[in-house]
Amino acid sequence: MFYHTKKLQYFKPPTKPDAVYAKKVQELIGGTFGEMTVMMQYLFQGFNCRGPAKYRDMLLDIGTEEIGHIEMLATMIAHLLDKAPIKVQEDGASDPVVGAVMGGTNPRDVIMAEAMAMNPQHLIVSGLGATAADSVGYPWNGRFIIASGNLMADFRSNLHAESQGRLQAVRMYEMSDDPGVKDTLSFMIARDTMHQNQWLAALEELKSDGLEDAPVPSSFPLQLEKREYAYQFWNHSEGTDSAEGRWAKGSSMDGKGEFEYIENPQPLGPEPQPPQVDPRLHGTPIDPSMNTTSMSSPGGTSMPSQGVVKEIDKRNRQ
Amino acid sequence: MFYHTKKLQYFKPPTKPDAVYAKKVQELIGGTFGEMTVMMQYLFQGFNCRGPAKYRDMLLDIGTEEIGHIEMLATMIAHLLDKAPIKVQEDGASDPVVGAVMGGTNPRDVIMAEAMAMNPQHLIVSGLGATAADSVGYPWNGRFIIASGNLMADFRSNLHAESQGRLQAVRMYEMSDDPGVKDTLSFMIARDTMHQNQWLAALEELKSDGLEDAPVPSSFPLQLEKREYAYQFWNHSEGTDSAEGRWAKGSSMDGKGEFEYIENPQPLGPEPQPPQVDPRLHGTPIDPSMNTTSMSSPGGTSMPSQGVVKEIDKRNRQ
Amino acid sequence: MFYHTKKLQYFKPPTKPDAVYAKKVQELIGGTFGEMTVMMQYLFQGFNCRGPAKYRDMLLDIGTEEIGHIEMLATMIAHLLDKAPIKVQEDGASDPVVGAVMGGTNPRDVIMAEAMAMNPQHLIVSGLGATAADSVGYPWNGRFIIASGNLMADFRSNLHAESQGRLQAVRMYEMSDDPGVKDTLSFMIARDTMHQNQWLAALEELKSDGLEDAPVPSSFPLQLEKREYAYQFWNHSEGTDSAEGRWAKGSSMDGKGEFEYIENPQPLGPEPQPPQVDPRLHGTPIDPSMNTTSMSSPGGTSMPSQGVVKEIDKRNRQ
Amino acid sequence: MFYHTKKLQYFKPPTKPDAVYAKKVQELIGGTFGEMTVMMQYLFQGFNCRGPAKYRDMLLDIGTEEIGHIEMLATMIAHLLDKAPIKVQEDGASDPVVGAVMGGTNPRDVIMAEAMAMNPQHLIVSGLGATAADSVGYPWNGRFIIASGNLMADFRSNLHAESQGRLQAVRMYEMSDDPGVKDTLSFMIARDTMHQNQWLAALEELKSDGLEDAPVPSSFPLQLEKREYAYQFWNHSEGTDSAEGRWAKGSSMDGKGEFEYIENPQPLGPEPQPPQVDPRLHGTPIDPSMNTTSMSSPGGTSMPSQGVVKEIDKRNRQ
Amino acid sequence: MFYHTKKLQYFKPPTKPDAVYAKKVQELIGGTFGEMTVMMQYLFQGFNCRGPAKYRDMLLDIGTEEIGHIEMLATMIAHLLDKAPIKVQEDGASDPVVGAVMGGTNPRDVIMAEAMAMNPQHLIVSGLGATAADSVGYPWNGRFIIASGNLMADFRSNLHAESQGRLQAVRMYEMSDDPGVKDTLSFMIARDTMHQNQWLAALEELKSDGLEDAPVPSSFPLQLEKREYAYQFWNHSEGTDSAEGRWAKGSSMDGKGEFEYIENPQPLGPEPQPPQVDPRLHGTPIDPSMNTTSMSSPGGTSMPSQGVVKEIDKRNRQ
Amino acid sequence: MFYHTKKLQYFKPPTKPDAVYAKKVQELIGGTFGEMTVMMQYLFQGFNCRGPAKYRDMLLDIGTEEIGHIEMLATMIAHLLDKAPIKVQEDGASDPVVGAVMGGTNPRDVIMAEAMAMNPQHLIVSGLGATAADSVGYPWNGRFIIASGNLMADFRSNLHAESQGRLQAVRMYEMSDDPGVKDTLSFMIARDTMHQNQWLAALEELKSDGLEDAPVPSSFPLQLEKREYAYQFWNHSEGTDSAEGRWAKGSSMDGKGEFEYIENPQPLGPEPQPPQVDPRLHGTPIDPSMNTTSMSSPGGTSMPSQGVVKEIDKRNRQ
Repeated sequence: MFYHTKKLQYFKPPTKPDAVYAKKVQELIGGTFGEMTVMMQYLFQGFNCRGPAKYRDMLLDIGTEEIGHIEMLATMIAHLLDKAPIKVQEDGASDPVVGAVMGGTNPRDVIMAEAMAMNPQHLIVSGLGATAADSVGYPWNGRFIIASGNLMADFRSNLHAESQGRLQAVRMYEMSDDPGVKDTLSFMIARDTMHQNQWLAALEELKSDGLEDAPVPSSFPLQLEKREYAYQFWNHSEGTDSAEGRWAKGSSMDGKGEFEYIENPQPLGPEPQPPQVDPRLHGTPIDPSMNTTSMSSPGGTSMPSQGVVKEIDKRNRQ
Repeated sequence: MFYHTKKLQYFKPPTKPDAVYAKKVQELIGGTFGEMTVMMQYLFQGFNCRGPAKYRDMLLDIGTEEIGHIEMLATMIAHLLDKAPIKVQEDGASDPVVGAVMGGTNPRDVIMAEAMAMNPQHLIVSGLGATAADSVGYPWNGRFIIASGNLMADFRSNLHAESQGRLQAVRMYEMSDDPGVKDTLSFMIARDTMHQNQWLAALEELKSDGLEDAPVPSSFPLQLEKREYAYQFWNHSEGTDSAEGRWAKGSSMDGKGEFEYIENPQPLGPEPQPPQVDPRLHGTPIDPSMNTTSMSSPGGTSMPSQGVVKEIDKRNRQ
Repeated sequence: MFYHTKKLQYFKPPTKPDAVYAKKVQELIGGTFGEMTVMMQYLFQGFNCRGPAKYRDMLLDIGTEEIGHIEMLATMIAHLLDKAPIKVQEDGASDPVVGAVMGGTNPRDVIMAEAMAMNPQHLIVSGLGATAADSVGYPWNGRFIIASGNLMADFRSNLHAESQGRLQAVRMYEMSDDPGVKDTLSFMIARDTMHQNQWLAALEELKSDGLEDAPVPSSFPLQLEKREYAYQFWNHSEGTDSAEGRWAKGSSMDGKGEFEYIENPQPLGPEPQPPQVDPRLHGTPIDPSMNTTSMSSPGGTSMPSQGVVKEIDKRNRQ
Repeated sequence: MFYHTKKLQYFKPPTKPDAVYAKKVQELIGGTFGEMTVMMQYLFQGFNCRGPAKYRDMLLDIGTEEIGHIEMLATMIAHLLDKAPIKVQEDGASDPVVGAVMGGTNPRDVIMAEAMAMNPQHLIVSGLGATAADSVGYPWNGRFIIASGNLMADFRSNLHAESQGRLQAVRMYEMSDDPGVKDTLSFMIARDTMHQNQWLAALEELKSDGLEDAPVPSSFPLQLEKREYAYQFWNHSEGTDSAEGRWAKGSSMDGKGEFEYIENPQPLGPEPQPPQVDPRLHGTPIDPSMNTTSMSSPGGTSMPSQGVVKEIDKRNRQ
Repeated sequence: MFYHTKKLQYFKPPTKPDAVYAKKVQELIGGTFGEMTVMMQYLFQGFNCRGPAKYRDMLLDIGTEEIGHIEMLATMIAHLLDKAPIKVQEDGASDPVVGAVMGGTNPRDVIMAEAMAMNPQHLIVSGLGATAADSVGYPWNGRFIIASGNLMADFRSNLHAESQGRLQAVRMYEMSDDPGVKDTLSFMIARDTMHQNQWLAALEELKSDGLEDAPVPSSFPLQLEKREYAYQFWNHSEGTDSAEGRWAKGSSMDGKGEFEYIENPQPLGPEPQPPQVDPRLHGTPIDPSMNTTSMSSPGGTSMPSQGVVKEIDKRNRQ
Repeated sequence: MFYHTKKLQYFKPPTKPDAVYAKKVQELIGGTFGEMTVMMQYLFQGFNCRGPAKYRDMLLDIGTEEIGHIEMLATMIAHLLDKAPIKVQEDGASDPVVGAVMGGTNPRDVIMAEAMAMNPQHLIVSGLGATAADSVGYPWNGRFIIASGNLMADFRSNLHAESQGRLQAVRMYEMSDDPGVKDTLSFMIARDTMHQNQWLAALEELKSDGLEDAPVPSSFPLQLEKREYAYQFWNHSEGTDSAEGRWAKGSSMDGKGEFEYIENPQPLGPEPQPPQVDPRLHGTPIDPSMNTTSMSSPGGTSMPSQGVVKEIDKRNRQ
């Protein structure tokens, strides 16, 4: 069960409105690596967790923190959308604040461009509020998250999510000159630093607890995979630039094999032979004679003849 | 530019049809972590790569390999769908092969259940061929992949994709008794072992090349984030199970800080104050008087009065 | 900011596993009217709320409650998926519990049908955990929710969501014989009763506060709409069954007009005349001569001739 | 069966082109609450209706009317896209009409900004025609509609759809200065007024017909829900602003209970205990020893040992 | 504007319920090539049509017909869902009708399998009505349709849609033994025959009217394309099976060139050189030195040094 | 299995950056008719092909070529995004190149408008690289493609895809003044010319091989469709403009019938009668008495009374 406290985890208001920047902030809420993703991913991983209590508790702690991050960003968007231009031509262009910021550009032109480029749903749909979508208006969806039941697979996902998330927050920081925006983002970037460290620590912990190891899942008996191909790098393109990396030589990272570079890889399998299908599906067969159906009676049902059925069988057994 | 060779990278045909298993194999093609994902992710990362040639080449090598994995699985599905039941009640129930496999169950019942449970699009849409969708028929989409331009962020994503991918392939292996299916999967599982190792190696290489380090992106000056919150674990729930993990104490994994456990975290920010909005958006204001618009003339335009505009301004500046 | 407590708001465990029922419970989590929808809808409405504090607080209270409902249902799914059949043919068929339940049906057949019909992603993707998707595996997405800034529009949405939600929970109740499942659902159904009442109350409150009224948005001056069509029912089909309802006669529900039944409605507008377009878009014009472009030079650019441009203009002004 | 008449239900052409406004009008066609939604929702509710004929007929009347609304808006978009700028730099900038409208801004700049900000698919994909998508280009989809079979649940949905729809149409009206656009919208806004009234009337009618009542569905025996929680407001956040509303005290709106405000709600359920899972799914168990599988033979199948199976059972029964 | 008549265009009721077949019929309503697609595609093509009146009128005629096809199929689904099993174990198993149909299979088993395999949303969401989704529950969406403004491009699309549509209807016919279902489908299949013929005729008409020709769009001056590659078949795979087709030799189908078979195609372009990017985006550059940013002041902004900017410029100009 | 060669099939770099044009190029990669569609469609058709080898080989040839087209366009986008404005106000405005191009417009204004209108994900998500999405940021998905198993149905789809694809490429050509962009596009347009010709040839070949004919699928016995409706044009709207086309008179295009124009089409079916449903689904019945359920015991299960069940049966049999 959850509780809410009215204050924000951290927040400095933007110093001025910027409807186009508000559009971009949506990426950090509803984008593939936005706060909705980490919140939902950690909560579902926590709800589904069968591992030791410390992992479950930690997942729910951080998942609960992330709900508050959505709250912070939604508040930031509300401020950025303040006085968003409702029409392309407004009188507000004489606003001295806007004028002062824009240097050589006509403030009226800035407002016009902003009115044209802002997310129209911020006006029409949400009335100047945040939405559950990314910076191009595509909605967040449940396929953005994973809770597989295997904690090492999932913590690797979490590490990647926090890496993409911090990268995006940093880019947003670079794209702004607003001290308030930058201050709030610098808190969130710091939390992403923590969270990257946290998942790196958790990955180490899983290993030291003997719960999982590389390759994931480590509980699958290695003899059941084709070991002879488990450490080969296949060079699928001309040239051998790819031979120069750590992945092409030396001990494998799991310590269980030796990397091998296959410069001219050859297929190991046969040409594919998809079997011929029942003529009642009216696909295109290899031979016209194999697609004939007879018919019991008018208004009745089409039926493949026994000859066709046998011919299909014969071919499919070759 | 790309070339195709007719033979499959590896393949053993299934020994018997199984339309319901074919439905499940779709997860490995078009699921979030299916072959379409790794293929497209590696190719886009390669196309967009500005890093050293060895990384670009390696990305395109593995991306090109993965196209062939889709080909293998599509062929497997075609075999598994052989003789898929077109109607719920078919005469094929007398097929001795089916009977032998099923033990105590009436073969007719097996076919009936299979006819009901198989993916209907395998019959209606694709005529017994693979589709670009997952095991519940949801189509693969471009938001499943990431190519961010930051290779460490992306390689962490690749490591996670190969972990989820191997986990899913292993689960599919466990869910089958068909020697042909298991043989082909055991090749793919081995390749996933290689690919996990490959990304672990590539992550190490990026670091030893001085191109990137934790926290990602390492090129962002750490002074610009709020360092005081960069190593704190916030305990957002009752109880302190989460204090027992590596993430709660000791040096941070990036070597740049010390983990700290905040047992009773308090909000650092104020209560949110989303600004009042222009009455022409007809949202609900804090006070009824703030939502009145006057009207220039019938058929004209509604306009907020100056009083309302000033009142909104005053409130929003508090 | 949010906190978590380890206990569930309410919960009775299912008395026996049922993987197919688990598939259905997903509708209550990730369906259009599942708990993810009400949770996210209420939180975003709360985050974006500019109205009086009691509304904002109430929205965040109920939104926070709903997070816990996801938690309850995810836990229910984990229990229902216990011992889910990994293969179509398993030995577990001799399990006496299953046998006792199934009456005249061979337990092995029940397991086979269950193995075929259960959501394959519960095995392959989530390892027997809940996912952020509905009963057919379609992921929850952000377009399921609305936070418009107009509280009456939104509370009407909330009332509808709780109506659909209670209807679906009731149907799920009817579809189960498991006392544990039914007990938990009967708690959730009661909460839906409260929530329907709550939104009815909130709608009344908005009106008595003078903040909003029918038709929504009431702050738009009625003179600006074409009042003569604001209370007419247009009978777009043969027959007049629709004349028998309350909507066809008497005072309008907003008390501002009189319903009128238009038995043979006639179009009020002209035939549409979409203007002819620039030939450089290579659409099909009304006349072949209007789609010719000339060309400055080989490798150059195609250009519409002045004659064509004039002809298009002339037509479009008709 | 349906028929078409060539004239539009109502229409005044826009007085001047405006490609960016055309982008916004898409919200009213293909957005969550656009005309495609109400059309499809009412038609499916009508097709599926088992209730008295007056409801079915009324649903199909209004659904049929809404098809014509798409037609009107598509025609509006075609006019607004007239002369849409194909290139960022065009000579049309000297067009005196544009110049006259734009006041202090360089017409060339207006065209440039418009060319950049318009929906690119209006040029590339549809050749200056309307598309089945919203104002950010996201396609309309079937999850936007509901036809549940319970008419009160559905009419509440319809009421909400017409509320959001009228709100959005009003916002679009406020965002335009074009007399033609405003005239057409003022007709549509009036129809939305009718339709809100219509659903309010239909809700009343369902009740007076004895077909349904609050809480929906009223045919579910109230004794089957946990009545003790059916009228409690749970205060999930600090502070008691939410105690001030109608929902916190007095008779419930359905007249069947008394609202109660729970200031400090406590969980009623236990801590969740998701059962341990079969090791063949390779999730992370609570203890490493529970994830071991043995193997019959090389190339064979992994199997959980009997000890592990028993241990899992024992834990799950606790 | 549109009108509705109460009778169906054509209909014979199914002779018996079949909930799993109802699931499949959804493909014909809401699938990629279902009736919603052709209806919406033809209506939008008609709304947007700038061509001669006969084309516009024809498009709206057929689009209007297709609305009625949805109505027919929705009615079929309602009948097929009659008495759909609400629980896995129901007493209805003793129903003699079911028993008579099923031959050797226990009717209770048929009902159980049907209860498990039917679309759960038909019970939970729609209460035994049709939904706007396909046979796996994926919703219809607006990207399924095209209205490009070029009628030949669009009529080719229509021809393809009617081909896939008739193929799917035929497959559904083959998958049923119900005389009522087959009768209704045989009407729809006949209409698809007409519609294929209609688009073939319309394609011929466009050409004979001089409005369009191959290659589409024919209004684009051929000199502007690289004519030397306009008739070459590039053999991108080993072997030359593809040389045996009509596409590899002889006059091109547009009569404007000669097919040529390129057996060993070689790339004509250079190796790609994506330019190095601004270090403030924190991507991975070709050299670590190029990703350094300095910082004006604590809490300030990171800035790329002039040296880095110059180095990037130099590389990107090579 | 596939191989990659480092060089591009064809490429001329753009002469200058243009971030907004880069946004538009995405349509050619990830749009409904972009290169991802043709690539995946041809590969899946090839993988699933059961027809003669020449078709399979040809499909895989062209599918493999199309992978390289994505590569070309991704490279084009990388160049177009060079120096994309990271902030709305940048100093780069003094760049003489930009100034020279823009004529009368202030270069600073061009950059500002570009910064506002460019795809924000090109900055935040991909770091100036191509994404797997269209020009409005909607991701490519697997429902864009079809591989039905019937080659004539599919080749008609391919013909249409290449028609839409060439139309879009031509529009993009018209929308650019950049010689490098135009040169690369003129190669792609030529390839589209080839591919349209190729599918026209392949359609002819299928027919001359006796594998398929109109109407598709031709293997379905025509007697099984309602032949009397197979060549009628139904005029669903007032007026008879549609009688003037080739589709309204003369021999049908398949040579198997005679077109007939039905000027006043009348419904052939009855009024729909969806059956009444089980009261446990709590839908709205035709009569309130039919929705009552009794209840075995408190905490028990609701049950429809026998009287209600009989009444439903009686009605549904009428």
